[in-house]
Amino acid sequence: MPNISIPKNRLNLPETIWWENGELFLLDQTVLPLEIIGERQETIEQVSESIKALKVRGAPAIGVAGAYGLLVGIKEFRNLSVDNFIRKIEEQAAWLGEARPTAVNLKWGLKRMVDFAKTQSAANSGELYDFLLEEAVRIHEEDRELCRMIGVHGAELIKPGQGVLTHCNAGSLATSEFGTATSPMYVAHQNDIPFRVYADETRPLLQGARLTSWELQQARIDVTLITDNMAAHLMSQGLIDLVITGTDRIAANGDVANKIGTLGVAILAKHFGIPFYVALPYSTIDFDMPTGEGIPIEERDSEEVTYFGARRTAPKNIKVRSSAFDVTPNEMVAGLITERGIIRPPFKKNLSLEYATI
Amino acid sequence: MPNISIPKNRLNLPETIWWENGELFLLDQTVLPLEIIGERQETIEQVSESIKALKVRGAPAIGVAGAYGLLVGIKEFRNLSVDNFIRKIEEQAAWLGEARPTAVNLKWGLKRMVDFAKTQSAANSGELYDFLLEEAVRIHEEDRELCRMIGVHGAELIKPGQGVLTHCNAGSLATSEFGTATSPMYVAHQNDIPFRVYADETRPLLQGARLTSWELQQARIDVTLITDNMAAHLMSQGLIDLVITGTDRIAANGDVANKIGTLGVAILAKHFGIPFYVALPYSTIDFDMPTGEGIPIEERDSEEVTYFGARRTAPKNIKVRSSAFDVTPNEMVAGLITERGIIRPPFKKNLSLEYATI
Repeated sequence: MPNISIPKNRLNLPETIWWENGELFLLDQTVLPLEIIGERQETIEQVSESIKALKVRGAPAIGVAGAYGLLVGIKEFRNLSVDNFIRKIEEQAAWLGEARPTAVNLKWGLKRMVDFAKTQSAANSGELYDFLLEEAVRIHEEDRELCRMIGVHGAELIKPGQGVLTHCNAGSLATSEFGTATSPMYVAHQNDIPFRVYADETRPLLQGARLTSWELQQARIDVTLITDNMAAHLMSQGLIDLVITGTDRIAANGDVANKIGTLGVAILAKHFGIPFYVALPYSTIDFDMPTGEGIPIEERDSEEVTYFGARRTAPKNIKVRSSAFDVTPNEMVAGLITERGIIRPPFKKNLSLEYATI
Repeated sequence: MPNISIPKNRLNLPETIWWENGELFLLDQTVLPLEIIGERQETIEQVSESIKALKVRGAPAIGVAGAYGLLVGIKEFRNLSVDNFIRKIEEQAAWLGEARPTAVNLKWGLKRMVDFAKTQSAANSGELYDFLLEEAVRIHEEDRELCRMIGVHGAELIKPGQGVLTHCNAGSLATSEFGTATSPMYVAHQNDIPFRVYADETRPLLQGARLTSWELQQARIDVTLITDNMAAHLMSQGLIDLVITGTDRIAANGDVANKIGTLGVAILAKHFGIPFYVALPYSTIDFDMPTGEGIPIEERDSEEVTYFGARRTAPKNIKVRSSAFDVTPNEMVAGLITERGIIRPPFKKNLSLEYATI
């Protein structure tokens, strides 16, 4: 396969998702930071596999990838009648939406595409497809803009000289351009605020080591990589002033579902009196989910824990628990950094209020 | 080299150190759990290399290996006069003691052998050698018995149906037979108490994944391997009722220095109201160290975090913090499980009292 040339974004980082000459491309995040490889997505099955395999990952990015991925899956049906085309769109969207259960954005992106399709009066399915491509591009552009706005609001939290801890990758690679948890960091850096970032390596898949530390390093932000189990020690040494993570889903009461280990970080932060913030697009709030208890937690393959690359690092037949996410209760959250501003507790009230203004 | 048959201990686990037909053998822990290989130690230089390379590891195990290792180094000098033999013993002990200069138990084991040699009235060097072998066996047996007694006292903490979390490896492999943190588990298992163990994998060197989960699995204890960052989630699910870890040093006020990540586990346990216990031989208490603040924390090579085996998993030139230990304040410790019984807070008072009774 010839090397695919990867476009750069405004932060001079590689794009994670791009559409070029009628085709979808994804940056393969599973081989970062050792290799920087783009992959053409030729079928919706391949898109689903890419999402499952975490080649594209991060809730907002999956939403964008889902919208473009749907186009890949319906392209061949443009010869159908509009009614049948729309049925096909619904079918394909429902199927692609199953690729990952916890991330609300995938289903959100797909639903927006399906709802959009139903409201168009297109002359034929080819035209509807073109309208849908425009909608996918809008979703992508809106994600860029709202990520940047998260940073504009969140940057004020980072004071000169502070240490900021983050977990997993809710960065440029997980979203469009500025990321969510990283966006306040990128904006603060653009504003010439000096600060340090500590990136949890984030076992088992090491998104912190492979992705966050890499993208912050590329952006010339002062970043230090640590093992997940070192955060408490650094907090006890007074090195961390602020925690910012992303989230995969927020319940209506402000409970936060995010990468496994986030709950632990939040409890440690509370213990040491360090404010714990969560950065997110407003769309990550699931108003149909009253509390975090109802959020399904994906259990992952045990080999993610027992193997490292091709190398086994645990006994054969060892029992493994590998939950992909955990839920942080709202009372541990100092604020939700959104594109509309920082939402403070009580979240149940303040989230509803904000919601009512849409 | 022909395969060396490895004897089993009373737990049906491979011995880590054994003496057979006048020769010393060590289990090579660096290749566990993928390979179970015993190595004959033919020279004192080889023993020193085995200690340096962590083929034998864990403070108590190194003390025992040192005592036997000295025998390997003096065997060929049994034709000397007793006076000259003793000089040789001192020389070889001093040299072997340098294999890991920070491990207190290695020097302790060697000193005990040298002191013992000086107090014997042997007819000749051959007889003195035989006496020294008996002393090495006594050191080994005493460590077995002490570890077992930790378990006898600690087993009462484990109730039927409970989940026990442990961190790193303070197990059979690190000591003689029952281990320290694992000893209450082995004794409870012998007493037919049904319970589950969750073993933190313990980054960066994965002693939990490679060693603890393996030895508990071998002993047919119900063990589940988790990433370090999953403990909070399991606690929030009510799966963990008790935490037991080992320790590298306890200050006179009960502050606990142990493998990095222990502090985090202790804070989580406190948050969820789960008792956090530390298992140790009484000799681990450093009465010259008033609080944990004075305990030096070793910083390790960054490649332990950025590489996995031969595979790089983080960006080149990334800044890394890799502290090997952390300090858990005494107020988070429910009790210290020792061979003399479980010591409860207030530790400063109760440790002194216990100490006074020696």
